[in-house]
Amino acid sequence: MAGNTFGNFFKLTTFGESHGISIGGIIDGCPAGVKINLEAIQKELDRRKPGQSKIVTQRKENDEVVFKSGIFEGVTTGTPIAFEIQNKDAKSKDYSHIKDVYRPSHADFTYQKKYGHRDYRGGGRSSARETASRVVAGALAKQILKTVSFHAFTYSVGSLSLNKPVEEIDFSLTENSITRCPDSALASEMKNYIKKVRKSGDTVGGVVACVIKNVPVGLGEPVFDKLHAELGKAMLSINAVKGFEIGSGFEGTKMLGSQHNDAILKNESTSSNFSGGVQGGISNGMPIYFKVAFKPVATLMKDQKSIDVDKNEASVKGKGRHDPCVVPRAVPIVEAMAALVVLDYVLLHQARKNVEF
Amino acid sequence: MAGNTFGNFFKLTTFGESHGISIGGIIDGCPAGVKINLEAIQKELDRRKPGQSKIVTQRKENDEVVFKSGIFEGVTTGTPIAFEIQNKDAKSKDYSHIKDVYRPSHADFTYQKKYGHRDYRGGGRSSARETASRVVAGALAKQILKTVSFHAFTYSVGSLSLNKPVEEIDFSLTENSITRCPDSALASEMKNYIKKVRKSGDTVGGVVACVIKNVPVGLGEPVFDKLHAELGKAMLSINAVKGFEIGSGFEGTKMLGSQHNDAILKNESTSSNFSGGVQGGISNGMPIYFKVAFKPVATLMKDQKSIDVDKNEASVKGKGRHDPCVVPRAVPIVEAMAALVVLDYVLLHQARKNVEF
Amino acid sequence: MAGNTFGNFFKLTTFGESHGISIGGIIDGCPAGVKINLEAIQKELDRRKPGQSKIVTQRKENDEVVFKSGIFEGVTTGTPIAFEIQNKDAKSKDYSHIKDVYRPSHADFTYQKKYGHRDYRGGGRSSARETASRVVAGALAKQILKTVSFHAFTYSVGSLSLNKPVEEIDFSLTENSITRCPDSALASEMKNYIKKVRKSGDTVGGVVACVIKNVPVGLGEPVFDKLHAELGKAMLSINAVKGFEIGSGFEGTKMLGSQHNDAILKNESTSSNFSGGVQGGISNGMPIYFKVAFKPVATLMKDQKSIDVDKNEASVKGKGRHDPCVVPRAVPIVEAMAALVVLDYVLLHQARKNVEF
Amino acid sequence: MAGNTFGNFFKLTTFGESHGISIGGIIDGCPAGVKINLEAIQKELDRRKPGQSKIVTQRKENDEVVFKSGIFEGVTTGTPIAFEIQNKDAKSKDYSHIKDVYRPSHADFTYQKKYGHRDYRGGGRSSARETASRVVAGALAKQILKTVSFHAFTYSVGSLSLNKPVEEIDFSLTENSITRCPDSALASEMKNYIKKVRKSGDTVGGVVACVIKNVPVGLGEPVFDKLHAELGKAMLSINAVKGFEIGSGFEGTKMLGSQHNDAILKNESTSSNFSGGVQGGISNGMPIYFKVAFKPVATLMKDQKSIDVDKNEASVKGKGRHDPCVVPRAVPIVEAMAALVVLDYVLLHQARKNVEF
Repeated sequence: MAGNTFGNFFKLTTFGESHGISIGGIIDGCPAGVKINLEAIQKELDRRKPGQSKIVTQRKENDEVVFKSGIFEGVTTGTPIAFEIQNKDAKSKDYSHIKDVYRPSHADFTYQKKYGHRDYRGGGRSSARETASRVVAGALAKQILKTVSFHAFTYSVGSLSLNKPVEEIDFSLTENSITRCPDSALASEMKNYIKKVRKSGDTVGGVVACVIKNVPVGLGEPVFDKLHAELGKAMLSINAVKGFEIGSGFEGTKMLGSQHNDAILKNESTSSNFSGGVQGGISNGMPIYFKVAFKPVATLMKDQKSIDVDKNEASVKGKGRHDPCVVPRAVPIVEAMAALVVLDYVLLHQARKNVEF
Repeated sequence: MAGNTFGNFFKLTTFGESHGISIGGIIDGCPAGVKINLEAIQKELDRRKPGQSKIVTQRKENDEVVFKSGIFEGVTTGTPIAFEIQNKDAKSKDYSHIKDVYRPSHADFTYQKKYGHRDYRGGGRSSARETASRVVAGALAKQILKTVSFHAFTYSVGSLSLNKPVEEIDFSLTENSITRCPDSALASEMKNYIKKVRKSGDTVGGVVACVIKNVPVGLGEPVFDKLHAELGKAMLSINAVKGFEIGSGFEGTKMLGSQHNDAILKNESTSSNFSGGVQGGISNGMPIYFKVAFKPVATLMKDQKSIDVDKNEASVKGKGRHDPCVVPRAVPIVEAMAALVVLDYVLLHQARKNVEF
Repeated sequence: MAGNTFGNFFKLTTFGESHGISIGGIIDGCPAGVKINLEAIQKELDRRKPGQSKIVTQRKENDEVVFKSGIFEGVTTGTPIAFEIQNKDAKSKDYSHIKDVYRPSHADFTYQKKYGHRDYRGGGRSSARETASRVVAGALAKQILKTVSFHAFTYSVGSLSLNKPVEEIDFSLTENSITRCPDSALASEMKNYIKKVRKSGDTVGGVVACVIKNVPVGLGEPVFDKLHAELGKAMLSINAVKGFEIGSGFEGTKMLGSQHNDAILKNESTSSNFSGGVQGGISNGMPIYFKVAFKPVATLMKDQKSIDVDKNEASVKGKGRHDPCVVPRAVPIVEAMAALVVLDYVLLHQARKNVEF
Repeated sequence: MAGNTFGNFFKLTTFGESHGISIGGIIDGCPAGVKINLEAIQKELDRRKPGQSKIVTQRKENDEVVFKSGIFEGVTTGTPIAFEIQNKDAKSKDYSHIKDVYRPSHADFTYQKKYGHRDYRGGGRSSARETASRVVAGALAKQILKTVSFHAFTYSVGSLSLNKPVEEIDFSLTENSITRCPDSALASEMKNYIKKVRKSGDTVGGVVACVIKNVPVGLGEPVFDKLHAELGKAMLSINAVKGFEIGSGFEGTKMLGSQHNDAILKNESTSSNFSGGVQGGISNGMPIYFKVAFKPVATLMKDQKSIDVDKNEASVKGKGRHDPCVVPRAVPIVEAMAALVVLDYVLLHQARKNVEF
């Protein structure tokens, strides 16, 4: 294990630095015989790409993905699927000022200490640019999972929060706003707030929520590989994530068991869904529902105190083009990681069936 | 992968059902030459064991661990360490009433659907009894990690919450109360509340927090195996856990970047620690700080509506001996899982050093 | 990875030293719903156990296996199957003479250097006693694989070799002789030869061959996890094994392509089977055929020159009870490892099927 | 696991088909701070490349490797190293004749049955072209292992065999001949024999031997991950390999223990080396010595009987440009795989050291 591979069956290994030649990955374990819709994959990438709206980074990257192997005549062959996205608008000179200075709450200090030698340009490997590769793989996973649907959305930006029961949310509205909040009034408020924050050279955090529908009963492995444990790890591996909760989450800790338990109905659904679709680490057929906490972006257009590699005090201020709030672009990333987990667990589940031949 | 192994180097594989012959596990990858203090391991188990106080289950288990291999003349040999804990007070007849009925918010329904055949006695494999094996392995990991210290404690029970900055908490008080809350006044309130809840046949949730001190800089693997992602998975794999947050967590999403960023000081520490000791997935040398949300225990001493395996409506009510609140006994489990993660990542870190010979 | 686990899905982790309390293991990933025949498992263990005939070690071990978990009402539950075999006739005093002296061609020297601290009694973890755990797991795998049959047999002892085309061998004769050679005349010669070798205080090597019938087409993963590569690793992991060949093996290197190629017939079988049932790393439906080379047992009842842990010259001579030739008892071990590989690859194959729900 | 990854720490994942856009891979787990000699890597690739001499395939590929990530300013950063080799001279039309016909002893039949859909051009993923990626990674591993030296050589071609004790071989002669046999007279014989075989439209097999010098004592993991078991798997995963033996191998099975045991000398070396440098699965500091059996190349320039995908009888004859004997080009591949195993086990060994901080 060296940390750049996700999944056990549908295994994604990614490579690439923010300002290197390219980023990309290899997907190993994709079932053979799947007809691939390349446009749908590109479309998911476009949801994540920089420059898509006024409230995200203005770095210009088309993020066009090229597949190198594993797909023949439009259909997967079961062999590794390699893909690459060129880094086109990589303005490395924007980063000369941080060559020797550690940006607060970035990975500069920890990478330097761990590896001794790092590509400091734009965060190098620690840049969220890496997540584009996840979106490619996730988009492919979605195509294999056909009937399962993934609905991530912006739940909150700063203190602006969507206090609506998840059952009442109309997911068709999510893409209507550049904030990806499926409530048009709130979406507008969020947009204005993000603009205001950016103007002040500051940044803000937020929460992405996700609902997965039509997950078959029985996904998840006891004891350590519970479905929500793997979902949690997947989400916590996304840049800037500081928290994960499923179903009732932290709020549920304040409830009594008699309020919290989901009564089981005759049709094998449950009357409430505080479990968030997972019981004992295994999906129960109800919608899977979880939330992901994103901290404020660490790069500010303001002076911050820090030190340089020789432990001298230094001041650092963001240059380049950065997101004031990561949440709108994080929505497709959350969906992608969710799709990777669900597909991996579907394949795992298939593996463990009793042998028949 | 089949889910019963945790870790990559210091690898724990557990076995056993709540009401079978025994539970236990094999630890593979333990470094050789470690002098083992068996009493210290047993002491950790005693912190988790049933019957230790009036606010936990009254099942009588001494939980004595027997080691079968891998330790010779009191010192580890580098070969697998197998251990076993007998199930002594397993009253299986307590469970005949749930042979065919699914308990709400338990794993009965999901195990039945996934496996078709299950050991229904006391939850079988899905019982939290399995976590005793984790505590054994975690206690061993702690002994190897010597200078690292793990301080889990009860942060909240229901709405009773310790609203104190983590720096002000005196961890030496944790074991003074049967609730394991390191604030004597609040601990007393919690105890009374749990008693009241139990009397009403109900249960309640809570939050365990944990501080890890003296973690060396540089633990954690990019991109998918970030240190806090693995900690999150470890915690979410504990029974009844519905959420995990590190550092500022969900609260941090409401902050501005200028408030949230941890300024780096000349001694390479940070002025604040909203990052919770991890930046870019790698430890930065500051205390690691996280919280774990436990839902209310699902077994109630009250009638609940459910269905049986034939989809007929049924009523189910807890018998046997159960915890009204899992939090006090969860404290050593959280520490154990944290120790497993930290040791595993220390060994990983060693592996990746440049070769010298 | 720490080396005591075999398999990816049907995962066996073993523990135990030759002269410790017990040996055993945990099988994780066994499909649920398999009715287990415990007697058949014990019978396989009896084929491997010491003292079964006059040409094997006279150590007295009944090798009775006890299952601790994962089987409920005689049927697997899908949860980990733990098992244990007590060490009853462990005469540790037989080994005090090798506490400080390295036996030639044993693992004493290498374990001491690797771990610094070792259980020297009877080889400790490096003893072939560990293979009893493999036989248990292999016997279970055989029961799941029902229609697949495993036919290992003694192919040669020293220079006494069965030069018969594999198609002409009557596997029903294998168990008729204590040598497990399915040719009664040769079996008798082998038996006499082993007796003679033992009388002289010496030991001898040999070859075990194995034919696996009814393996479905399509098992094996490109590129690194070819079916025969995993079979090879499985066999080479057995104590005393120095070589592995499949199909034509080393002899095939002397052939021309026009002699060696297996022509494909209308019924999708091949006219010859120099491929040994595997092409491109994937089973082709023909019998899988391979050979495993076992070196002579390293423990001699003769003086041998060596050194002690302080690098002084020393002499060492076997005490205790040892096999003059490991081959007869290795036959069930080879079958067990073959069964573990085939079952693991069957489950892998299931995992990679296209998703349908 | 899906089969396209090798190694646990120094992890190589490869992609690409023989006649696709490109082949390549990602190396994850490379230690940071290694200065990379790119020319030395290209030189290893040149030893494997087609068209290098008259006795190998005349396909024209420069096989120039391009690195995409993980190396910054000529030094490894510890992040994934991606690389790519373009397929330039891929004459796909050469393969239209095998679109629907299975070539005997190739992977056409097994891939078709396993995946249903395959890239038939030049064997697609099953082509030995994939091994170029292994050579890249192996060359990098060699640079990290500095003091360890890898000496593979052609041991036999057909029945022409180098019957010389390994200690007497002058490895500096290996590259002097296009056959890579370090005995000039025999090399010449081999060359002529291969030419003769090619003229007749046929192919021939052979054996590659390898000696690894200066391997530190203590590499190898009990029980299942013995050093020679992993070496065996590595070699058996190379296209066309049918056998592996270490040290005395199959010949050793005919010896008595008193002949075979390697006496241990005062300097901790052994008087003989029938063990081949590995005892109990762990390196003992002596040269590691093993042999690898390559079957004759399956593609013949002769008519062969086979069937097509509809089970009709068919005839197939090689077109395109193929090797009459794979052995000379296999020499650098064997070295590469050996280097991957040794480095991986060095990193594993580092991981398991006792913790000190």
